[in-house]
Parts: sequence; C-alpha cells; structure tokens
Amino acid sequence: MNEMAGKAPTTDIADRDTPLIRNCWYVLDWSDEVGRELNNRMVLNQSLVYFRTRDGGIVALQNRCAHRGFPLHRSTLHDDDTIQCGYHGLTYDTSGACVKVPSALDMDTSSIGIQRYPIVEKPPMVWIWTGDPARADPGLLPDYDWVNSDEWGYGTGFYHVKGNYLAIHENLMDITHFQYLHGAALGTPKHAESKITVTVDGDTVDNYRVNEGEPVPQLHQRATRLGDAPIIRHAHSTFITPGFHDALGKFEDPAGTVDGRTEYQPHILHFITPETQYTSLYWWIFARDFTPRDAELDAFYSDATSKVFEEDKDAIEWIEDQWARDDRPGYREKHVPSDEGAVKMRRIVTRLAEAERAGEA
Amino acid sequence: MNEMAGKAPTTDIADRDTPLIRNCWYVLDWSDEVGRELNNRMVLNQSLVYFRTRDGGIVALQNRCAHRGFPLHRSTLHDDDTIQCGYHGLTYDTSGACVKVPSALDMDTSSIGIQRYPIVEKPPMVWIWTGDPARADPGLLPDYDWVNSDEWGYGTGFYHVKGNYLAIHENLMDITHFQYLHGAALGTPKHAESKITVTVDGDTVDNYRVNEGEPVPQLHQRATRLGDAPIIRHAHSTFITPGFHDALGKFEDPAGTVDGRTEYQPHILHFITPETQYTSLYWWIFARDFTPRDAELDAFYSDATSKVFEEDKDAIEWIEDQWARDDRPGYREKHVPSDEGAVKMRRIVTRLAEAERAGEA
Amino acid sequence: MNEMAGKAPTTDIADRDTPLIRNCWYVLDWSDEVGRELNNRMVLNQSLVYFRTRDGGIVALQNRCAHRGFPLHRSTLHDDDTIQCGYHGLTYDTSGACVKVPSALDMDTSSIGIQRYPIVEKPPMVWIWTGDPARADPGLLPDYDWVNSDEWGYGTGFYHVKGNYLAIHENLMDITHFQYLHGAALGTPKHAESKITVTVDGDTVDNYRVNEGEPVPQLHQRATRLGDAPIIRHAHSTFITPGFHDALGKFEDPAGTVDGRTEYQPHILHFITPETQYTSLYWWIFARDFTPRDAELDAFYSDATSKVFEEDKDAIEWIEDQWARDDRPGYREKHVPSDEGAVKMRRIVTRLAEAERAGEA
Repeated sequence: MNEMAGKAPTTDIADRDTPLIRNCWYVLDWSDEVGRELNNRMVLNQSLVYFRTRDGGIVALQNRCAHRGFPLHRSTLHDDDTIQCGYHGLTYDTSGACVKVPSALDMDTSSIGIQRYPIVEKPPMVWIWTGDPARADPGLLPDYDWVNSDEWGYGTGFYHVKGNYLAIHENLMDITHFQYLHGAALGTPKHAESKITVTVDGDTVDNYRVNEGEPVPQLHQRATRLGDAPIIRHAHSTFITPGFHDALGKFEDPAGTVDGRTEYQPHILHFITPETQYTSLYWWIFARDFTPRDAELDAFYSDATSKVFEEDKDAIEWIEDQWARDDRPGYREKHVPSDEGAVKMRRIVTRLAEAERAGEA
Repeated sequence: MNEMAGKAPTTDIADRDTPLIRNCWYVLDWSDEVGRELNNRMVLNQSLVYFRTRDGGIVALQNRCAHRGFPLHRSTLHDDDTIQCGYHGLTYDTSGACVKVPSALDMDTSSIGIQRYPIVEKPPMVWIWTGDPARADPGLLPDYDWVNSDEWGYGTGFYHVKGNYLAIHENLMDITHFQYLHGAALGTPKHAESKITVTVDGDTVDNYRVNEGEPVPQLHQRATRLGDAPIIRHAHSTFITPGFHDALGKFEDPAGTVDGRTEYQPHILHFITPETQYTSLYWWIFARDFTPRDAELDAFYSDATSKVFEEDKDAIEWIEDQWARDDRPGYREKHVPSDEGAVKMRRIVTRLAEAERAGEA
Repeated sequence: MNEMAGKAPTTDIADRDTPLIRNCWYVLDWSDEVGRELNNRMVLNQSLVYFRTRDGGIVALQNRCAHRGFPLHRSTLHDDDTIQCGYHGLTYDTSGACVKVPSALDMDTSSIGIQRYPIVEKPPMVWIWTGDPARADPGLLPDYDWVNSDEWGYGTGFYHVKGNYLAIHENLMDITHFQYLHGAALGTPKHAESKITVTVDGDTVDNYRVNEGEPVPQLHQRATRLGDAPIIRHAHSTFITPGFHDALGKFEDPAGTVDGRTEYQPHILHFITPETQYTSLYWWIFARDFTPRDAELDAFYSDATSKVFEEDKDAIEWIEDQWARDDRPGYREKHVPSDEGAVKMRRIVTRLAEAERAGEA
C-alpha cells in the first residue's frame, strides 16, 4: 500500500514521506530486456506486467486480473498478444480489455478490463507513465538519442535501492560527497571545496562547479590516458524531472597532452523510478565522447561505476534505516551551502506533489 | 493480534478482511498426530496446546500460562495428565484449572485457570470449537464415517497457506480453474465451459456441473483404468461451513469399459481452518470408491493431489500478496457467472460475521 | 521509532508497553570492548556512535550526521578525535560540535552539532545516560569496585534479548523459576518452595529467601567442592534501578566441610539496557568469593551461566511472542505470592514513567 498517497506534504522541502509524483515519465526497463516473456515490476506501488508484442511494440498492463486478482505475469502470453489468466482463464488483449471468459463464452465482457499504461520506447530505455494518461506527452521525455551514435561509448548499471527516490536525486545534486564516499575514484580535495552555481529553470535545477589544477579522477585515467596532467574540470548535475537526472562533465586539457585533444566529455544519465514510497529502481548510462566504440572500455565503465554507485546505494540505505529506527524527535536536517540545489529541487517536488493533490481533489 | 476481531464487515460479500467466524467447528489436526507430546497450533489467532490423555481422550487448552504467559507446549506433561508450566511450575489439570502453585502450596488457586476448548475426535480428524462453548454441538459436525469403511480408499495432504481461508473456499467453489491452473491433471476444455447449477440450502451452497464426452482427467487414469473412454462427469462442490467443503464427483461410463462397471465416485473432503486473518491451515482427504484397499494407490493420490493443490496454494498466496502490496485504489473484483456459488457463499459468511458481532454486542 | 515515547502508562503495574525510563544510567558496553574503532549500539531507541579518545576517555555521540543523517559509525575517526562524516565530510569534535564543513570552509558552523551523551567508565563496564544531562549524577551508579579485587573471581556473559527489559528484571526477581526453567543447575525443590521476604527501600526492591538442608546447586559444585553437604542457602535478588539488578547469595556450611570454611558468596551483577521498547541488551558478571584468581573457573562460570541464562532468554522471547501473536482479549496476568517483589518493582517503574512524562509536560 502507498501510505502517503493522497496526503498533503508535511514540509515545504520534500522528503521521504512526500507523496510520489505520478504525472511523470519513469523508466520501466532496458529496451533489450523486454521480449516475449511476461515481465513484472512494481512502479509507484503498482504491480505491472509488460511484454513485447509480435509487431515489436511494448505493452504494460495492470498485473492483476480483474476477476480475482491473480498476477498476470504468472499467466500465459498467447501468440496473438493476448494474456490468459492462469487461474480461471480470463483473456485480455493489448488494450487491457477482457475478450474472453471461458466459463461464460456468451457473456458481455465490455465492463471487464485492466489498466493499460502509456509506454514509450526510446532506446536503450523503456518509459512508463502511471499518472493521468491524458497528460502522457512523449514530448516531455529527455533527449538522449546521441548516446546511440558512434561518437559515444557507455557502460551501464542498475540497482534496486531500499531508500526513497529523492535521496538518490539529492545524492546526485551535491557531488561534494565524491571525495568522502568514493575517495580517489571520483573525488579530489579541491573538487569538494569548489564553489557551486545553482540555476533554476522552470522545474529543473542545475548545479555547476568548476575547478582546475588537479588531474582527472582515477575512474577516467584509463580512457583519457591523461595521467597527472592538470585539467579544468567542469561538472553540471541537473535535476530534470522526478524520474531523470542529467550529469554532464567536461575535462579541459589546454595543453593537449594526448594527441592534442583539449576536451573530454563524460555524460551520465540517471534514471530514477520510485518502486514504493521507500524503495527505488535506479538505472544509469555512463557515457563518454572519448575512446568510444571500445567494448572493453564499456565493460570497464559498467564494472567500475557499479562499484562506485554501490557506495551511494549503501549510503542511501543506511540513512533510510536511520529514519526508520533512530528515535530522535528533534532531528531536522541542517542545510549547508552546497545543498542549495538539492533544497531547491525538493521545494519543486513539494510543489508538484501539492499540484497533484489539488488536481485529484 | 486479530486486526479484524469485533469489527463490522465492510462489504456484504465477505472478503479477506471480514472477521473470522468463531462459532464453528474447525479441524485441529489428524487423529493419529495427537499423542503424549504437547502439540501447539494457532487457530483463529489463538495459540493452543493439545495432547492425548492417558484414557485416550484429547484435551486442548489455552497455550499461555495464566501467571506470566509462558507457552505451555514448552512445558511438562505429567503422567496424571497435568501440565506443569516450564517457567514457575504452575500446574493445570485437563479442565484448565490451576491445581498447584509450587511457591505458594497453601494458596487458593480457584481463581487461576486457562481456557479449555471443546474438542471432538471423529477419525481421522480432530475438531475444535473456539467460539461460545455452549454452542459447541457435535451434531453440527459433518458425517464422513464412510471414509473409514473398506469400500473406500484415500490419499491425504496438508498445507499451511499464507492466505485468508475464504480464498481456499472460493478456489474450491469455482472449478473452472482446473484447466488453467492445473492443466491436464484435473481439467479438460469442456469441463471448464460447462454450465453450473447453484443450490443454496440454509447456510450451505452447492455447485453442480456435468459434462460428457471427454475422458476422465489424468489424475484418475491409473485408479479407474478408463483410458480414453468418454464419460459423463458430474461434480458437486459444496460449501458446508466456514471450516468444511465437500466435493463429490461421479464418473459415469455407460459402456462399462472396465469389467462392466458404470459408476466411479471420487469424494474429496476439504478441512479449512483460519490460523490468522491472513493465513490458513488446510487438510484434505481425497477418497475414491474405486480400487479401495490399495495402499500404493493411496500413496499415489497423496502425492499427486499434493502436487496439484500446491498450485492452488501458490495462486492463493500470490493473490494475497497482490492485496497486500499492489496499490490500486479503484480495484474491485469483477464477478462472472461461474462465481455465483462463491458469491452466495461469501454473502452467507458476511451474515454469519454480522450475527457473531451482534451476539457479542 | 519509539511507539510508546511520551505516552501515559496504561497500567499501574508497568508492562512491556510502559514508556522506557530515560533518566537512568544504563550499561553501554564492556570497558575493554571500547577502543579506537567507531562502535555502534542502539540504546532506548537511539543510535549511538562511541569510541575511546586518545587520552583514554570514552565519548558517545548521536550516530547521525546533522546534515543528511549518515551513520557516523561508518565514517572516519581522525587522530585528533574528530569524526568526519563519510558522506559529505562534516567533521565533529568530541563535544558533538561541527568544526568543519568542507564544501563551505568559511561557514559559521556554530548552529550545527550532534548530541553528546554523558558517559562514565567504571570498569569493567561503561555507562551511558540518555535522559536529561543535568541529572546525570555519577553518584547514582552502583558500587561494584570490589569485583576487581583479588578476593573475587568472575565469569561474564552477554545476550541480545528479543523482549522488553522488564521481563528480564521480573525473571530475576522471582527465582522460583530456577527449578522449572533451569532444573538441577540452579534449582532444588525446597528452594522453589521457600518463603520470600520483600523489602522496599526508596525505589529499590529486595527479595530475600533462605532455605536449608539441601546441597549447593550443580553450578557451584566444582568451585565450592561442597558435594552433598547440606547447606543454608541465602539469596537476595534486588532491583536497584531499571538498568541494574543485584543478586547476592550466601551458602552457609556450619560443618566447615571444606578446610573449615563456613561461608561462600556468589554475587551476580545484572546490567539490563532497553535497546528498543521490545528488545534488550543484557550483560552479567557472575562473581564468587571462593576459589578466585582461577582463570579456568572464570571461563567455566562464563560458559555455564551462558547456558543457563540462554534458558531465561528463551523464556522471555517466547512470552514476548505470545503477547505479540496470541489474540486473547481477556488475558490479564495472575499474580501469586512470589510475585510480590516483581509487582512492587513494576509499580515503581510506572511511577518513574509517570514522573518523566510529567517532567516533559
């Protein structure tokens, strides 16, 4: 159950208890994970069944037979793209309409159906909309088609996180944690101490920092071969929607240490989907415009970022556990200057939650 | 704790949240499982200790010492049929009266006692009554003495089910699930599509269906040796009480394919006991009047029905999990014609729950 | 969360649901377990981090960074005794004051801090106070310095108990359970049946019993070598505070069976700390003034008492489980004469809880 659904936010800075934002695109899966099997995933507290149709589309339906609630992902997908419930045989087409009740073949089934969810496949991701279908505008999806071009290579990863999705967003908004949580893999002393410029544009929030005179962090040594060369490191981390965070970096090497090249861009796409109020699904694409088309480097980035992001996952889960168990009535988070972006993001989420509640009322 | 105890039913069609029916006989155990050990089982949210007395009777008591709540099934059964608590030695006779407080031998113990429950042993089952003892009429028990005669053989089984007991009843009331959940073991296409006649008699509900022209299902091939012979298949599935469902079948073979025999009766007794609001105890006797007195066939039916009924157990537990986790506020079960019997049964249970609440008030 | 915090006691005889008593010293750990690692323990529902400073003191702090709640026991202890949070690097001194925010080095951090708890090390135990610091008087601590003298030897033990701390106190107050729960290790028939004298002195409650004519229980046979010699057995079990129970025994052997010795004192210190409302931390020192300075006997007592006390742990956890699961609305504990001390203790605890609530209001 969604304990918080329909409740008013209790704080103007959204937190783990703030109602989830339904009118938003969220990633459901990787494109290449969706085939002719019936998959199951819970998104915003709703259990879904989804599969690829014979004509190559993707369908996501309520994973609960309208009759007695049997989970449809444990049922049968027929060649004609209908799902037949594994309990009493009710059969649904891809619109969610019941087209057959075997024990009552002459029955009018028009009142029987299950919810179909808007889906957009935009490789390598599949997106779902669990809010008002009338508002499911594909134009709201982020543009990341460039990632499929030959100019870019990328590693990927996925984690199930036992923590609220906002904690993942906040983690990404304040990269002063690089040095303390991840050490040399991502952090350098000056990086943590560099100033941050926050820019709010509509419902997006960008954090920008730049620092110079330090080498690229260890994670990128292999792909850049920059060694100890001092660089200018630019980093944008941008909250785009409750389901998507964009992190664009740039390493400037005016000396052109390697073959005269002066710019290197790492670009990380973070896809964040609330599974329940206190658990999340988290995918990422860790892209680079240097040494692309190198499968071994792609695998290296998948492995290396999984190790690093597991530290984020741990941090988020440990903090969630503190909220759940540490009884400290006076506890209120203290904000420091580097939280400016995250706090602005959390105010936006509160506003979105308020708007959804007003819309329902 | 029993979350629902004392609450009014919220729907006229009883569901998993409807208060349990206390004034009813429920099976506690198999007769031959009760000996001189102290057994423990939870029935309708109450923990019980039970054992066989030296004179061969069966006693069931509150499994909680009146003094400090120590579980009596972890205590000592003396040769004189008293139980001595394993914590401070309080001793209870078979009526539940405290007959000794070792640290106060001269104390008047008449105010100290634990609840004794009405028990009836009717082999091969032991029945318990957790409601008003004054209403525990053995005459309300179903008659199944025939099962012990030489004319019948049977296999047996038991499952602990993580689901509400009504879901087991409903499963049994609508056997259109045979084909979809169990496949060829029990189902045949025409069987699922045959019409059902529902008869309500007092608080009992019978579903009757007949279909013809198909062979006996696989489960019965070995014992009937009917092979492909087309038969007329009659099936009654009858809700008798919240604790008991009776399923009587008949295969007619007018051709007398095997030694001229024209009728075969499978007769299954389903004993269903709520353990808690959302978990159940489920025993069955799968009897037949064909090839009785065949221990190997008995074992075959025990094994084969356990495999089939595990599919029912899975279905019930998966559905229970949907109710617990899938947040779908608008979800209401849709009823189809084959649910007529189950819906009538569930209305009866609501009425029984209302009557119990009125009686308590 | 502490479900009961701030609520009024619902009974004059405190029980598992009575709010925990905060203004009291509780044991946090063994002295020799506290070194330069960051330890973590939950006490009265609050998560703590604690460690030994370079000058040999012990510091216990709120285990939750003021910024985003990261657990500090998973952070870094620097050589200057500061803890630097493993997430964004906020740094705390031993007073709990934040002395550095790396991403805002010029920031005024005076409003950022974490709670420091009063600690007293009194070997071999470390004590903590989670209530009003102004009331944390070390003079309230029990005196057990004698245990460190050469005249005494001791075994030790520790258990995490899934039960409310009062159940441990009550277990210790009524030693009629020796014979039934522990059998010959601690009990003898006359011991269980001997009369008890209860003396209340302020907020302490002493139970005293004496019985004669039986040998020392098995546990003490090896260290006393008294064999079958009939002794006079004195036993005090005394509730001192919600965090401490003192059990002083004396075996009198007027015949001087062994080398003419006529008195033997076992003296057991029980340190009981509520971890949460329904779980507890339990340490003990099982001391003797006979055959001291014998490491092998110390080890024997550690092993043997751990075995015996595991039976108490089991009893307490089983009873807690009954409270949680057995739905028996009419159940009220029955008190017998040997409960006099425990009931008086529980009334005192209710009074303490009322006083704390009044003080907060």
